[in-house]
Amino acid sequence: MSLIVQKFGGTSVGSIERIQRAAARALATQQAGHDVVVIVSAMSGETNRLLKLASDIAPVPDAREMDALAATGEQVSAALMAIAIQAQGGKARSFLGHQLKILTDSAYTKARIKAIDAQRLHEALAGGKIAVVAGFQGVDDAGNITTLGRGGSDTSAVAIAAAVGAECEIYTDVDGVYTTDPNICKTARKIERISYEEMLELASLGAKVLQIRSVEVAMKYGVPVHVRSSFSDVPGTWVVSEEQSLESVTVTGVALDRNEARVMLVGVDDKPGVVAQIFGALAEENISVDMIIQNAPSYGLETRGTSGEVKADVTFTVGKADLPRAKLVMEKISSGVRAMSVRYEEDIVKVSIVGLGMRTHAGVAARMFQLLAAEGINIQAISTSEIKISCLVSTKYAELAVRALHDGFGLGGKA
Amino acid sequence: MSLIVQKFGGTSVGSIERIQRAAARALATQQAGHDVVVIVSAMSGETNRLLKLASDIAPVPDAREMDALAATGEQVSAALMAIAIQAQGGKARSFLGHQLKILTDSAYTKARIKAIDAQRLHEALAGGKIAVVAGFQGVDDAGNITTLGRGGSDTSAVAIAAAVGAECEIYTDVDGVYTTDPNICKTARKIERISYEEMLELASLGAKVLQIRSVEVAMKYGVPVHVRSSFSDVPGTWVVSEEQSLESVTVTGVALDRNEARVMLVGVDDKPGVVAQIFGALAEENISVDMIIQNAPSYGLETRGTSGEVKADVTFTVGKADLPRAKLVMEKISSGVRAMSVRYEEDIVKVSIVGLGMRTHAGVAARMFQLLAAEGINIQAISTSEIKISCLVSTKYAELAVRALHDGFGLGGKA
Repeated sequence: MSLIVQKFGGTSVGSIERIQRAAARALATQQAGHDVVVIVSAMSGETNRLLKLASDIAPVPDAREMDALAATGEQVSAALMAIAIQAQGGKARSFLGHQLKILTDSAYTKARIKAIDAQRLHEALAGGKIAVVAGFQGVDDAGNITTLGRGGSDTSAVAIAAAVGAECEIYTDVDGVYTTDPNICKTARKIERISYEEMLELASLGAKVLQIRSVEVAMKYGVPVHVRSSFSDVPGTWVVSEEQSLESVTVTGVALDRNEARVMLVGVDDKPGVVAQIFGALAEENISVDMIIQNAPSYGLETRGTSGEVKADVTFTVGKADLPRAKLVMEKISSGVRAMSVRYEEDIVKVSIVGLGMRTHAGVAARMFQLLAAEGINIQAISTSEIKISCLVSTKYAELAVRALHDGFGLGGKA
Repeated sequence: MSLIVQKFGGTSVGSIERIQRAAARALATQQAGHDVVVIVSAMSGETNRLLKLASDIAPVPDAREMDALAATGEQVSAALMAIAIQAQGGKARSFLGHQLKILTDSAYTKARIKAIDAQRLHEALAGGKIAVVAGFQGVDDAGNITTLGRGGSDTSAVAIAAAVGAECEIYTDVDGVYTTDPNICKTARKIERISYEEMLELASLGAKVLQIRSVEVAMKYGVPVHVRSSFSDVPGTWVVSEEQSLESVTVTGVALDRNEARVMLVGVDDKPGVVAQIFGALAEENISVDMIIQNAPSYGLETRGTSGEVKADVTFTVGKADLPRAKLVMEKISSGVRAMSVRYEEDIVKVSIVGLGMRTHAGVAARMFQLLAAEGINIQAISTSEIKISCLVSTKYAELAVRALHDGFGLGGKA
């Protein structure tokens, strides 16, 4: 007998019928001989309904009250799920954040879990009950209700799985993690096993199946996570530690992000503190920066200013929604860093390849650039990490670039 | 400076606009120099929506889970009210049952408050905040969420007022307690002050302005309660202790209850234990009995059975909805108590007059019977308490009886 945590997302509890289906699955798992802890999200649409009520009253409602408000969505789902399990003949008990003592910091709307008291869960399980836990929510030291941010129920599930030593099933409306977006590339294939590290890169790049923080928690505590569909019994994708990640491919997936805009500061002074000044100013305005590329001046060919000083170009990307605010910041600081000009580009996308294999396989980057060049796609910027290479290309090439990379790296299924 | 508890019912927080209006009232009260605690119900319709979700899953959902479910309604209202007060420039903080430690017993769906820790309220008030408390809910010793039953927010409000030594304003969709139903009697008049005792009799008789238990709590702790409209500034009705209840009228109000059915056991054995047997059997089936009338046999004229034993008639009333189950009980026990027959009557209503004055004024009952007789209304049964006299009459006389008593006892306004 083992202990299994099953998390049902908003679409998986989006109606009475779906709640009943999820309850049946949890019961079947219990009847197969497992102890079962169920984590639920709010019914789909409910969180948005609640947030709209608040935003109809105040443009920026108080974060503490927003959390007290939003947490009701998961509370409703948890009670209904317990009732549904009971109606099917099972034993169940719902638990809220304050009842399980899911202790978080006090960062309302984006709190982080500090500790979970698993005692009450173990008591419920020992009594033959399925424990149903409201996801997304916790309490701080003072008993204030906190929430973990959008998608936070994933993190609740993985953290609880870690606390009780269970594996974690994430039921969602897709049947796993794909090598790329099947809507763009018909040969996209479901990945059977993927490492936490790769999943982190893919999640942050737009394959939004799991909340990033849940993957970080799973990696930290070695919780095996099984992402699968709540509408079928087909196995999904296992997110596991690197050693368990069996597929010995170089590249695991291709991701596309349409949400970035590029900012290029041309000819800023190439001296210590300049880059810090640029990104410090952006951070002050709470603007997240993704890619940062600075070309070190190659002496002899370097750009020089009118007084002969060494110049460099700094390129970075921000979310398209943040671009207007980023422009205001650049207007304020560009003369301070003595930029010769600032260029903005929204008509770009970021395509990335991700894979543990590229750490040990030389030439992956070169192959990526060749594949794009063969299609006549110009690369506007490049940034790399140990297991990821990202290129900015013109928006019109988005799908073409994804397909070229996906099939070029042999990710396609036999379809 | 005084401390005022303001309770806003479901219709008073039934929309964003109404929440904003209630928030403005609380703020105005604070700006007039008072400390303010606001108690909120769920937005009108919300509790029914939640209960329907549960009943769609199970015909009789688990009571613990029902309470966890239903309590979200008040949690939403409390957060939105705090946000609305803040949006109007005030300081506010919401409190849930578990945060205020509104400690109850574990009788889910009808819990009773055992204690309230006012410390956190006083801290919030000392910080210049309006404390917004989710009504209707508490926690038991084990931290399970409990609710106080329909209308329980009234009880929350009065109990909190008692705990902090405040007076209590109940904002609702009527502007006070009337001498009788204005829909029946055009001369009905709003009562300025009424005693707890009279309010208890009126509330239980159908003037459903305040939850009965809230009046009991107010009486026990001497909390002055002001029932008034959330849609106007006109003073409502004060519910106060007997000494403060200034109106020196004999009869305070006339109530009508259309919901009762009469059961008459004719010729049961007049010996010890028979009545206990009848009502014990009803209690076992959880059937509430309202009026009970037994005519003691007047020796010489008593009814006698075929063997010459003394017989008596027992009449009682039950809710119309309980009549079918009451009939089944009677079928089981009528031969045991040797009833000669059982008669049922649904075509009746109960009219009652209520007033502290009747304790000291002789002849009130006689006057009531005269007033009814003058209209040709036959009285089918009578029961009396210290401050109430109730008569069962035929349904067709309902409105006529109410008007005759209301005007006959001089309750009419000058309209």
